[in-house]
Amino acid sequence: MHTDLVAALDIGGTKIAGALVDGRGNILVRAQRATPAQEDGDTVMRAVQEVLGDLTGSPLWGRATALGIGSAGPVDASAGTVSPVNVPGWRDYPLVERARAAAGGLPVELIGDGVAITAAEHWQGAARGHDNALCMVVSTGVGGGLVLDGRLHPGPTGNAGHIGHISVDLEGDPCPCGSRGCVERIASGPNIARRALEDGWRPGPDGDASAAAVAAAARAGDPVALASFERAARALAAGIAATATLVEIDIAVIGGGVGKAGDVLLEPLRKALGDYATLSFVRRLTVAPAQMGTDAGLVGAAAAALAGRTAPTTAAGV
Amino acid sequence: MHTDLVAALDIGGTKIAGALVDGRGNILVRAQRATPAQEDGDTVMRAVQEVLGDLTGSPLWGRATALGIGSAGPVDASAGTVSPVNVPGWRDYPLVERARAAAGGLPVELIGDGVAITAAEHWQGAARGHDNALCMVVSTGVGGGLVLDGRLHPGPTGNAGHIGHISVDLEGDPCPCGSRGCVERIASGPNIARRALEDGWRPGPDGDASAAAVAAAARAGDPVALASFERAARALAAGIAATATLVEIDIAVIGGGVGKAGDVLLEPLRKALGDYATLSFVRRLTVAPAQMGTDAGLVGAAAAALAGRTAPTTAAGV
Repeated sequence: MHTDLVAALDIGGTKIAGALVDGRGNILVRAQRATPAQEDGDTVMRAVQEVLGDLTGSPLWGRATALGIGSAGPVDASAGTVSPVNVPGWRDYPLVERARAAAGGLPVELIGDGVAITAAEHWQGAARGHDNALCMVVSTGVGGGLVLDGRLHPGPTGNAGHIGHISVDLEGDPCPCGSRGCVERIASGPNIARRALEDGWRPGPDGDASAAAVAAAARAGDPVALASFERAARALAAGIAATATLVEIDIAVIGGGVGKAGDVLLEPLRKALGDYATLSFVRRLTVAPAQMGTDAGLVGAAAAALAGRTAPTTAAGV
Repeated sequence: MHTDLVAALDIGGTKIAGALVDGRGNILVRAQRATPAQEDGDTVMRAVQEVLGDLTGSPLWGRATALGIGSAGPVDASAGTVSPVNVPGWRDYPLVERARAAAGGLPVELIGDGVAITAAEHWQGAARGHDNALCMVVSTGVGGGLVLDGRLHPGPTGNAGHIGHISVDLEGDPCPCGSRGCVERIASGPNIARRALEDGWRPGPDGDASAAAVAAAARAGDPVALASFERAARALAAGIAATATLVEIDIAVIGGGVGKAGDVLLEPLRKALGDYATLSFVRRLTVAPAQMGTDAGLVGAAAAALAGRTAPTTAAGV
């Protein structure tokens, strides 16, 4: 007997990926288009419709029972709209309604991309078996999501866990979001590189001034590069400790390009967590690297669709 | 037909209050002892047993079906133990087991005092009807609790919502908890008064150098007093905005002695929230003064007992 499938969309500023996913998280059919991010909203939607068209054209489509969408944020799951920072043509864009129409009326679950990645790590990755977890992406930006009491916690609008924009330095540098001293303003890749350059670090002959190049310099012992990663680690630690103190998580999973820097980031991060996570009930908090690869967004969107359709705890067994 | 009751305990560093509470939050029987906070653990427990003895001696006791305990923290609901900072004789003290024995074997729900007050405000006070709320006590310390998805979120150990010890100034002043720049280190009553004194404010002829006296001076236009409240308001706003960004709350309820300062605190707080709560999904966040009085801890403990009795998933259930 055939088991049910779900359809999944992962919508970012660069590409729109789609898939049909089974109850174990296996991707059976794929589709993809580039995101025409600078075009008007309906042109962007056309790319989404083409991806969904590829999926509905599959002989497996008839088994799909729901559509999960993980989108660059902010999203508004309660209104069914999205306003991705990197897709200016979409502002309060009625993505859920349009996607449901293009998907033959299937029920749609919309979550932010940080929440989607969290769903994937909880289902299949580093947060599996943890009832209370924070999963983060540290990259060009800093995003995240929460698992509380064994279930994804997207919040009413699907944006919960947005750790990149909590302030850990209330009189710190202005952040493009309008606040000050946000975790992202200190710990994102571009900000790690910016600080290293401001403090005198210089890229090698290839001119690579990315956070990855700063990480390589830190690994080679460059004190300015090390200091920039340590500052980022302290901001991440303060944010993670705040999250643990507020909602009692027992693991923080770190993914994304900066997360891949490995011990250059994780070692000062674990040390700094000892400085900020001091109360008895947060001291056992651990940090782990993410395990899911580039399909995390799709797998997480599928997990959200499965959870929306059934009791969340049985999602993995469908 | 008689409806069921629950027993409630509110355990603080000064007093131990007990009550029998009906399903509408009415207190039908009361008992109280001073907390022998500097005595050994069993002496403190004896005071708890005396309070419970008064309750079990009531003719209404037979209708009690559960016991809720709100205790000064940290607590550990999963272990059934408490370690209140202000009661040194209790360290990992097995309060749940001892209280259950003294209460004739009733099921016991243990939560922290900030969580208890949150349960009360959600049931009967300023957070009523809000599915996602942060309730705070700003007083000698700063505590709090969370309502998420319409239900109290105590967390696995019963301490969630502990906003007083999240860092909003990662290189700020050391906090007694071991971290730096905690909300409590900036916004508690003693820290508001300390900062005003450090910056040149002087108490009147009565020598009153409390935060209440600083609030009175601020109301009279004293610029140093106003600045100290504004600094506290910014720290509270950064912490509230962080909470909203992480878990999507739509109201923050402020109680406690400093909360009673009124507009001297609330006006700069609302202004500062505009500075820190910038993302689309947190901008609608409102701030309201607490509505529950001195019985908040008892009523909240009763609410937790009632919820635990009908929701068997609560980790604290014994």
